[in-house]
Amino acid sequence: MKDPADIPYRAPDAEARRITRALISQARHAVLGVAGQDGVPILSRIAVMAGPDGQPVALLSGLAQHSSALLRDPRAGLLIADEAAQKGDPMTHARLSLQIEAKVIDPAQQTVTDLRGRWLAANPKAKIYIDLPDFRFWLLHPVSGLLNAGFGRAHRLSPADIVNSPADDTAREQSS
Amino acid sequence: MKDPADIPYRAPDAEARRITRALISQARHAVLGVAGQDGVPILSRIAVMAGPDGQPVALLSGLAQHSSALLRDPRAGLLIADEAAQKGDPMTHARLSLQIEAKVIDPAQQTVTDLRGRWLAANPKAKIYIDLPDFRFWLLHPVSGLLNAGFGRAHRLSPADIVNSPADDTAREQSS
Repeated sequence: MKDPADIPYRAPDAEARRITRALISQARHAVLGVAGQDGVPILSRIAVMAGPDGQPVALLSGLAQHSSALLRDPRAGLLIADEAAQKGDPMTHARLSLQIEAKVIDPAQQTVTDLRGRWLAANPKAKIYIDLPDFRFWLLHPVSGLLNAGFGRAHRLSPADIVNSPADDTAREQSS
Repeated sequence: MKDPADIPYRAPDAEARRITRALISQARHAVLGVAGQDGVPILSRIAVMAGPDGQPVALLSGLAQHSSALLRDPRAGLLIADEAAQKGDPMTHARLSLQIEAKVIDPAQQTVTDLRGRWLAANPKAKIYIDLPDFRFWLLHPVSGLLNAGFGRAHRLSPADIVNSPADDTAREQSS
C-alpha cells in the first residue's frame, strides 16, 4: 500500500521549478511558522525578498518572538503565495510551502550591504528601523518544499528544484 | 527587566476584540501551521469559516498531511488575514495569529449539518468532495492569540477576547 501522504503529489518538472522560482522572486511578504517553546507552531507575516541564489531572505527584529524561536531552533516553515493573484478562489492560486533552515547573515558580509540597498528600494519605510541594532537579515535556506499550483497540481520539491544553481545563473546571463 | 517578548504588546481592548472577531467572521481561507513528525512547522493554506461561537472551522481531507499531523498533535498555529485589504503594504494590514487546538466535529452532530449547508453556499465547488468519506469538519478552538492591527498595534488575546460568549450572542439577537 502506498503512503497516503504521497498519493496526491507529482514529481517536479521544469514548469513546477519555473513557478517555484517565480513565486520566491515576486514575494514581498510570506507567512513564517516557527516552533514555540512548547513545540507548537507560531505563525506570523514577515516581509521577504529573494536573496543569494534566489533563496528567501527576511529582515527580522531581535525583539520579535520569531527571532528568539529561530535562535532556539532554526528549522521553520514558510508559505509564499502568488501575490499577483487577487481574484477568484485563493484555494486555486499557486502557493509554495517551504521547510527552511534560518541563519543570521553576518552583517559584515558584502551580501548585507547589497541586501540593505535592495530592501530599502522595495520597502522605503524600513529606513526607520533597518539600522537599529537588533535588526538582522536572515537567510531562509530551503531544505524541501511543496508547490501547490492549483487543485490536483501538487509537487514535492528538493533544494535543487527551488534554489538557483550557478548553472542557472550562467544560462540567465547568456540569455540576457 | 521586562521580558523582551512582552515589550511590543498592548492589553486587549474593546476595539481589539471587535477587529479580532471581524477577522474570523470574514475569513474564507487561512494559513495553518502544524507540527511535522520532526517537530518542524509545516504550513498550508486551508479554507475556513466561522463556526460555533465564532470559532474557526475547516473542512480537511484525511489524506492531507495536516490532518495526520493534527491527529498526532492537535495543537497548531493559524494565521487569518484581512481579506478585504488588498492595496498598500500587507505589513500594515490587520492579521490574527492564533494558537489553536484542533478537534474533529462528530459528523452525527447537528452542527455538521448546519456547517455543511453554509460551507456549500460559500464554496459551491466543494460539492465534489464534501461527502467523500475522508473529509471532516474540524473545530479550530482558539487557545490564545496575537492581533497585529498595524505597526505598533499588537495585542495579546485570551480565548474570551476571541470567541463569542453566550452573552455576546444574546446581545446580538436583541439588537437584530
